[in-house]
Amino acid sequence: MEQTLTFEALRQRIETIFRQAGMNAVQAASLSRVIAAGERDGCKSHGIYRIEGVLRTLKAGKVEGTAKPELDSGSDGAIVRVNARGGFSNPAFELGLPVLADRAKELGLAALVINDCTHFAALWPEVEAVADHGLAAMVMCPSYATVAPAGGTRPLLGTNPFAFGWPRQEREPYVFDFATSVAARGEIELHRRAGKPLPEGWAMDASGRPTTDPEAALAGAMLPFGGHKGSAIGTMIELLAGVMIGDLTSPEVLDFLGTTTLAPFHGELILALSPEKFAAGREGDPFARAEMLFAAIQDQGARLPSQRRFAARQKALTEGIALTGAEVAQLDRLLELGLDAIA
Amino acid sequence: MEQTLTFEALRQRIETIFRQAGMNAVQAASLSRVIAAGERDGCKSHGIYRIEGVLRTLKAGKVEGTAKPELDSGSDGAIVRVNARGGFSNPAFELGLPVLADRAKELGLAALVINDCTHFAALWPEVEAVADHGLAAMVMCPSYATVAPAGGTRPLLGTNPFAFGWPRQEREPYVFDFATSVAARGEIELHRRAGKPLPEGWAMDASGRPTTDPEAALAGAMLPFGGHKGSAIGTMIELLAGVMIGDLTSPEVLDFLGTTTLAPFHGELILALSPEKFAAGREGDPFARAEMLFAAIQDQGARLPSQRRFAARQKALTEGIALTGAEVAQLDRLLELGLDAIA
Repeated sequence: MEQTLTFEALRQRIETIFRQAGMNAVQAASLSRVIAAGERDGCKSHGIYRIEGVLRTLKAGKVEGTAKPELDSGSDGAIVRVNARGGFSNPAFELGLPVLADRAKELGLAALVINDCTHFAALWPEVEAVADHGLAAMVMCPSYATVAPAGGTRPLLGTNPFAFGWPRQEREPYVFDFATSVAARGEIELHRRAGKPLPEGWAMDASGRPTTDPEAALAGAMLPFGGHKGSAIGTMIELLAGVMIGDLTSPEVLDFLGTTTLAPFHGELILALSPEKFAAGREGDPFARAEMLFAAIQDQGARLPSQRRFAARQKALTEGIALTGAEVAQLDRLLELGLDAIA
Repeated sequence: MEQTLTFEALRQRIETIFRQAGMNAVQAASLSRVIAAGERDGCKSHGIYRIEGVLRTLKAGKVEGTAKPELDSGSDGAIVRVNARGGFSNPAFELGLPVLADRAKELGLAALVINDCTHFAALWPEVEAVADHGLAAMVMCPSYATVAPAGGTRPLLGTNPFAFGWPRQEREPYVFDFATSVAARGEIELHRRAGKPLPEGWAMDASGRPTTDPEAALAGAMLPFGGHKGSAIGTMIELLAGVMIGDLTSPEVLDFLGTTTLAPFHGELILALSPEKFAAGREGDPFARAEMLFAAIQDQGARLPSQRRFAARQKALTEGIALTGAEVAQLDRLLELGLDAIA
């Protein structure tokens, strides 16, 4: 039967599922927060739908459900390092965030490197968490090889998400978070299930020819957004958030996992920048000036990114998060069966 | 009569033009280096063609030809600041570079902020100069309002270039440098001169309707690359390399200049990251691992960015830089007439 839950009630229910499935407190708490946040924001692709993927990765032995992330005490300069120790990225991020924020406020900018993590979440929760400290953020990570570089014919790059945030006073930050492929892999899967052809320009088949057939696309390669420019940004992400931080690149992730049905194992790079530090001694308040830019964008009828998500959040926070009967049944089933619910 | 010159001979000829036109040694030397480099690399849009624009901006009193850039002695933490004092960005960059490189090697990453500069150059010379120190670089700056945000109808964002570099041993770095608009403004101008329609998706007319007419496009707005994703990156650049560093955004630049025929006045943000520092303690050499990625890209027939430019460079360095008779005559004319050559 359908239910409407508060954020905290939904979060606890998710946390209990993960605890029952054998995850430790720090992993379960952190994951329940990001998954409940996805559901709250109407971001179904990163909501409770993800629980099963987490359990599948756990059952396959590709993630440490009891890992305790470790802050590198040797972290110095502007680099803060957290080793996820084979667990999920999210608790590692939460451990590193306060140190990152302090370092960025002291030095003007700083980087948080997360190594040896399994990653399945959107990047916007992290961007927003950095922005809550009054800092701008750039976040990026590899994925698994599913995207052909521009001019190429075979999967090599990941869908490599890139996210950015800018803090706004008394309201949600300016946030974008997108795949550097034309479409997310899930969107191709949705077309396949619906028996609908893909828009042109999304993918190529296994022989490197353009295709609008979702099956052929899944067996072939996706295309980067914006042609050679998006391909270059995807490559930059492999270099900075894979190679540079000493963690796996997208082709290495696919070799390691052997499948795209499990959450990928790699690293993540978070850059935090202090507008107050950067703007010090210059005319004008950076936060007030940013508002002028946002107003000018909206004045011409263009939308700021994430506004639909923020509207869903406001609604959820006042009216609760509505789950369908099928969703409630699935949560009950996952709670009862735990890892046995996974085929 | 056509001539073939060495890089240094061409550079000196350009330097002399700028000195004769009243620029001081530091401005003239720095500008001559980037302009000769553009010509050497077959990058005609940033080669000697730019000399006239420099002189025009000088004649209009919109740049200080005798400015001495100033390194902020209060620069601390991971932020290095150079005030261009109304001169060109290039000598300011050259002044800040060694400090930026030292700081990035010490802290792992650092930022160079250039304020109050006039900017006309490509970003790749700077990306390459940072890479020469064994550092990765991200460089960005606003421009003037000529690009409509996705979903908008009027110019607001600039063509906001974004460039990235990764150092490679014993060879040119991995480098990309592109406008965050679909096309550079100069390309629309070239279509106009050739009387050729624009490809679809490049621009809209003054009433916000899609157009393929170059005249209508120049009176209207250009479009960001990659739809809402490119628009978001363009906005990020306004925030980080405009608002955050306390310098003008693209709409403010256009207000200040009142024209797009002069080089824009704003700031610039350069981030430098040390792969050695980031990868420390992790398995694998980041430079060797990057080569594996580059090889995999090229193995499938895709090209790395900037390769055409590097090939032109190699040719120019062995065979010299070939100028047409018209180009030689124009250099002679600019040398003789100086600012009087400008209408």
